[in-house]
Amino acid sequence: MAEADSGGVRSVQRAIDLLALFDTDHPSRSVRELVDATGLPKTTVVRLVHTLEQTGLLWARGDGRIVPGTGLLRWGELANRTWRLPEQAKRLLADLSAASSGETVHLYVRQQAARVCIARHEGTRSLRHVVHVGEEMPLWSGAASHVLLSDADGADVAAIAARAPHDDWSDALWQRVRRAVADGHAVSHGEREPGVSGVAAPVFTGSGRMSAAVALGGPTIRFTEEAVAGFLPPLLETARALTTLDCIGGTA
Amino acid sequence: MAEADSGGVRSVQRAIDLLALFDTDHPSRSVRELVDATGLPKTTVVRLVHTLEQTGLLWARGDGRIVPGTGLLRWGELANRTWRLPEQAKRLLADLSAASSGETVHLYVRQQAARVCIARHEGTRSLRHVVHVGEEMPLWSGAASHVLLSDADGADVAAIAARAPHDDWSDALWQRVRRAVADGHAVSHGEREPGVSGVAAPVFTGSGRMSAAVALGGPTIRFTEEAVAGFLPPLLETARALTTLDCIGGTA
Repeated sequence: MAEADSGGVRSVQRAIDLLALFDTDHPSRSVRELVDATGLPKTTVVRLVHTLEQTGLLWARGDGRIVPGTGLLRWGELANRTWRLPEQAKRLLADLSAASSGETVHLYVRQQAARVCIARHEGTRSLRHVVHVGEEMPLWSGAASHVLLSDADGADVAAIAARAPHDDWSDALWQRVRRAVADGHAVSHGEREPGVSGVAAPVFTGSGRMSAAVALGGPTIRFTEEAVAGFLPPLLETARALTTLDCIGGTA
Repeated sequence: MAEADSGGVRSVQRAIDLLALFDTDHPSRSVRELVDATGLPKTTVVRLVHTLEQTGLLWARGDGRIVPGTGLLRWGELANRTWRLPEQAKRLLADLSAASSGETVHLYVRQQAARVCIARHEGTRSLRHVVHVGEEMPLWSGAASHVLLSDADGADVAAIAARAPHDDWSDALWQRVRRAVADGHAVSHGEREPGVSGVAAPVFTGSGRMSAAVALGGPTIRFTEEAVAGFLPPLLETARALTTLDCIGGTA
């Protein structure tokens, strides 16, 4: 029974991993490609594809290619509805960008070992920081990550730090997280990508739990100490207003 | 091994069924609600939710509610990209509506025992036929279904007919499907919903396989024999043009 159960979780994971092989670069796949990419036996892949076809998550196009199924249209719509910000919140992000020399604003939530961009207001500068909605960024780096890890314990932070391409990142990350808690915001320069800086502040739920990080991102050359000092007041004001709206992940 | 395998497929099915419990009327759920709705033991539900959270398909909002996860944002975008028609094809649907007294045009594909609307051009009449993109309709009724079943064998059609709320629908459905093949189009009046009529024609893939059905739908009172005779030439022309474009389910 316990074994069948763990087999079950493993199968769900496999099915999800299989779906994850479809992306912008691979909008369609053949069974052969799926076998090669997963390393699973062909019989297992065929069975998984069959199950996913039955439920509308995959669709056999008729030219031997398999594509994301129509069932995902419905879930995509549902996810959009859950994560789409109310107009009032979108306006807050736009106002923050305008008040911060036209830098790009992103809103991130934690998703396991990643932060996911759930909303953005693209800046007006020609050199700008671009992260798309739905895009996952590593949680071991960046001001938004330090903010999102504010309520994480040492073991959690250590596990995240272990994913960084640096030796002994655990202490450094922990210090950054503690500092974000103490300051009520975080600033980072080129932690993951040289020349990219960020300033982030926490958004809380109605019950005071960490909910999201609102962040300004742009080239380090424009994120001088003076510029950051100017960004902070509108950023903190925006974070407070988003906390009051309490709309991250929907309200229904 | 065989047992673990079938347990695996069952688990995938359960996970998908669990996700399907989130819809427009239920954008968030508690574990308690999921237990009640699935009839599964709480331990099983908790394990499934945990697996789905790990992979970003579900998200715990922090107020005890579980919502569709950010991972679905990416898949939704991917499904949209796969199923979004090129501008040229959208224009064909709009032109067909204009040439057919402003009736609504839908494009359906077969998805197991259902037909799913993948595109539409809403009509201009105040009483109009509305099926949303991503919505599933039963395959046992309607002109679009008869067209989509053109390449199905007797056993397939019988299995679909068994889902109808009529006794012995198998022969009736088979006759309608054969007639659609012979005529190259199908017409239906009030088969599922009294007072709703449809006219549909087949769209084929480049290799000549059934791909989709393009359909005009509206109130029976406007779908007189004379009106349908007028709808047919532009409908068949549109179906041929969509066959030439060969764009159903993406092209990449």
